[in-house]
Amino acid sequence: MRRFAADRARRAVATSLRGAASRSAAPSPHAPAPRHPAAPVGAAAMAAAMARAMSTAAVGAPPVSLNTINPKVLKCEYAVRGEIVTHAQNLQQELQKNPESLPFDEILYCNIGNPQSLGQQPVTYFREVLSLCDHPALLDKSETHALYSSDAIERAWQILEKIPGRATGAYSHSQGVKGLRDEIAAGIAARDGFHASGDNIFLTDGASPAVHMMMQLLISSEKDGILCPIPQYPLYSASIALHGGSLVPYYLDEETGWGLEVDELKKQLEEARSKGITVRALVVINPGNPTGQVLAEENQKKIVEFCKNEGLVLLADEVYQENVYVEDKKFHSFKKIARSLGYTDDDLPLVSFQSVSKGFYGECGKRGGYMEITGFSPEVREQIYKVASVNLCSNVSGQILASLVMNPPKAGDESFESFMLERDGILSSLARRAKALEEAFNSLEGITCNKAEGAMYLFPRLHLPQKAIGAAQAAGTAPDAYYAKRLLEATGIVVVPGSGFGQVPGTWHFRCTILPQEDKIPAIISRFKEFHEKFMDEFRD
Amino acid sequence: MRRFAADRARRAVATSLRGAASRSAAPSPHAPAPRHPAAPVGAAAMAAAMARAMSTAAVGAPPVSLNTINPKVLKCEYAVRGEIVTHAQNLQQELQKNPESLPFDEILYCNIGNPQSLGQQPVTYFREVLSLCDHPALLDKSETHALYSSDAIERAWQILEKIPGRATGAYSHSQGVKGLRDEIAAGIAARDGFHASGDNIFLTDGASPAVHMMMQLLISSEKDGILCPIPQYPLYSASIALHGGSLVPYYLDEETGWGLEVDELKKQLEEARSKGITVRALVVINPGNPTGQVLAEENQKKIVEFCKNEGLVLLADEVYQENVYVEDKKFHSFKKIARSLGYTDDDLPLVSFQSVSKGFYGECGKRGGYMEITGFSPEVREQIYKVASVNLCSNVSGQILASLVMNPPKAGDESFESFMLERDGILSSLARRAKALEEAFNSLEGITCNKAEGAMYLFPRLHLPQKAIGAAQAAGTAPDAYYAKRLLEATGIVVVPGSGFGQVPGTWHFRCTILPQEDKIPAIISRFKEFHEKFMDEFRD
Repeated sequence: MRRFAADRARRAVATSLRGAASRSAAPSPHAPAPRHPAAPVGAAAMAAAMARAMSTAAVGAPPVSLNTINPKVLKCEYAVRGEIVTHAQNLQQELQKNPESLPFDEILYCNIGNPQSLGQQPVTYFREVLSLCDHPALLDKSETHALYSSDAIERAWQILEKIPGRATGAYSHSQGVKGLRDEIAAGIAARDGFHASGDNIFLTDGASPAVHMMMQLLISSEKDGILCPIPQYPLYSASIALHGGSLVPYYLDEETGWGLEVDELKKQLEEARSKGITVRALVVINPGNPTGQVLAEENQKKIVEFCKNEGLVLLADEVYQENVYVEDKKFHSFKKIARSLGYTDDDLPLVSFQSVSKGFYGECGKRGGYMEITGFSPEVREQIYKVASVNLCSNVSGQILASLVMNPPKAGDESFESFMLERDGILSSLARRAKALEEAFNSLEGITCNKAEGAMYLFPRLHLPQKAIGAAQAAGTAPDAYYAKRLLEATGIVVVPGSGFGQVPGTWHFRCTILPQEDKIPAIISRFKEFHEKFMDEFRD
Repeated sequence: MRRFAADRARRAVATSLRGAASRSAAPSPHAPAPRHPAAPVGAAAMAAAMARAMSTAAVGAPPVSLNTINPKVLKCEYAVRGEIVTHAQNLQQELQKNPESLPFDEILYCNIGNPQSLGQQPVTYFREVLSLCDHPALLDKSETHALYSSDAIERAWQILEKIPGRATGAYSHSQGVKGLRDEIAAGIAARDGFHASGDNIFLTDGASPAVHMMMQLLISSEKDGILCPIPQYPLYSASIALHGGSLVPYYLDEETGWGLEVDELKKQLEEARSKGITVRALVVINPGNPTGQVLAEENQKKIVEFCKNEGLVLLADEVYQENVYVEDKKFHSFKKIARSLGYTDDDLPLVSFQSVSKGFYGECGKRGGYMEITGFSPEVREQIYKVASVNLCSNVSGQILASLVMNPPKAGDESFESFMLERDGILSSLARRAKALEEAFNSLEGITCNKAEGAMYLFPRLHLPQKAIGAAQAAGTAPDAYYAKRLLEATGIVVVPGSGFGQVPGTWHFRCTILPQEDKIPAIISRFKEFHEKFMDEFRD
């Protein structure tokens, strides 16, 4: 029963000052207990392999083994593509070979926010423009007008004019094409009502590399702490582990719809400081992942004040800014909040992460994204630029898409109506799916589930019978991992156990996306219900 | 006169065991001396800013400053987009404002292997396929046949069939789409005559992230060394610095056309070991960057034997595999060499890096690439997979392009002839440009230049008069940096000083790409000649 990320995060803080010890190749004190022995990416395989590697670490040992590689790599975990997904992929192969072998006919990947993998169609206008920019020779041909909308053609021309030499195949400036950054900045300014500058934009291959870049900048050693929500999106814990820092957890309050309380931030900050940790930054994910809450404006103001007063960098994960499903909540960027409080560049270092993978477009495979950085000194910005330049630039198609996302068709454009139809169709369907799944979960014995106000996930809580917890213990796994595995094996539905995100010790959850196509939702709900009722019957105390 | 990377690399080895000292925020002992005070990304600005930051590091200090950020970031340098390029960009802005202000009318970026930025046109077939995959709805329309070649349409269908759900907008498997990896493996097998497996391919956003991934895996601390050629492509020194390891330099022999001698490898390996460094890997760049040599098969065999005997991972940078310009040399992959020696997966961990940015296609902006890893245990591969999964996947357009590059049109395909015309046109022109520039350099007093057998660069040696060295000293820069700056200011030609790549102490070089369009080469040569002759006249001893 040592499988709980929140626990581990706490221990990471407590033990982070052991320094050299945690850098040795010996199994980390935070290493998870064995789970599923057959899982190739799993903890058990790792432990076994480490034992093997150590026993042969004399003459003739292989040049690279688990006890010679970077221990930070060993320590890093990423549950969204972890053990349960590998198990699902194995079952999928089994299904292909023998369709009758399992009690379901397809695997439903609800583990990851990957809309197009579940049948969501790309937004036509965006793809038209990308297609033209990929093959600019089309723009000179009259036949092109038969295949592409006129405003997409016009937009492709405009974009090519922004790219030096119209060369979409050239490395761009390491922050991204200047004209595209300016367009993104204009989109941010229109969204927020406050000035934004293309010089502050760093275009990246999705938001993940941007997060890594900031962690690399801010973390020198395990004495550097990053305040992260629990539950959190495991990119943060993984990136902090890879860069050798300390995750300082703060708990979201499930009772108040995953509320983010500044008192809790203060408490955890003080506790970390008392242990010799220098807390460098606060991560806030809004709308929340995996928790789906949308922060209230007043709450955001307090968070900004807290960062200002405590001298923290505010790392704002705002990739779900277009995914808000409730009438009474609205997305506000942290930069807008800071500026509305009168804070300028001199008051507060603030990074906003955005991605083309989310929103209604869900263009995950295009790997587009950016970070907007404000409040950093020119000297520090130069260091960020230098690190960006080592990888030369992000992919130019992703850059183009990021500029489209932040400056979509306007009223009067040929594509405007069809674009809005596609957009609203997807967003309203996502809202209905979120509601249907939430209601279904809440209708079940032993499950409570907060509303998904935004983002793409539900994070229901499992109130498991003691017998089920015992069965999980006997199987050597966390109770929610046990539940998720049983769910997968009975229904083909893949969810991620709450332990991958962190949770209050002794509570159990799973993350489930709201992304299966709407016509499949009723069947999913009935498969889920049937499994859950049987599970509860099996283990009822 | 402390500006020489090779010297620095040597000192890095010598001082790498100081450990904690080098992790402090104080200026590194390897930090370069001030160069050009106005350069925003330069060393001088850094040093000045560090001094400023330190003097205010009390109450009220900004949350992030040069003395609180990760010192590994400070230490990292990347000359290809460094100070000289920033200076060039400033001059370009000056030219735009006032075209008469400078003695030239355009900046010629010969600092970076970025063919399409200098006017090279993309390969039509590749772009047709990408354009169709970006907008698959086109495939159902009859008008599409008027705009695209039939084999590009056919190929787009085939590619979409390999992508689950035909969803080019979905995150793929973290190693890349399985069907595309299999296609790349088939291309490798056809190239080498030895088996290759898609399971060993990791598709990445260009080759750079793949190199970082391996460095992250292999480097735990400054006690871990990586053998790198001097001169080297500065991605390697930058990545080693960012991951906190020690660069163990080995010198290429300029006298023998940048020969790579195994005796030199042995000598440097022993020297590093005697200092307590565990050397983990050997980097070989073939064809060479910045040096342009193509290794002979016999030489490659000795290198493979050396890695096998010494227990080193062989990191083979093979991104210029299609860029060979001489009749008497041929590219052989290190995997082919290892297999031809009878070595299997059990004998030797080997990584081959490949990129869509180079070759004749030069699709830098697409950020496609892969690494083929063989000879790693399943446990270690799982760790590599885990790290890849944290960033989810590389961009799918780049993945598609990597599969096209490794499986181009075949004889009989509609596009075959035009494809071969484009391909051969670019490659033969590059060969002519390499030869013309090499001959021009060698015709000048005080310059000797090895042939560019492959890759995209020449790395001429400057035999500078003592007076010029004195003038550089007086200006506080390395002599080759001084020369490159004077060249830029007189002609608009941007080259990278040899100190950015490393060189034998007391020798001076610069790297110049062979990429300006062929019709511009005569003018470049005459501008260069005129500058150089004046420079030599000015400083003749």
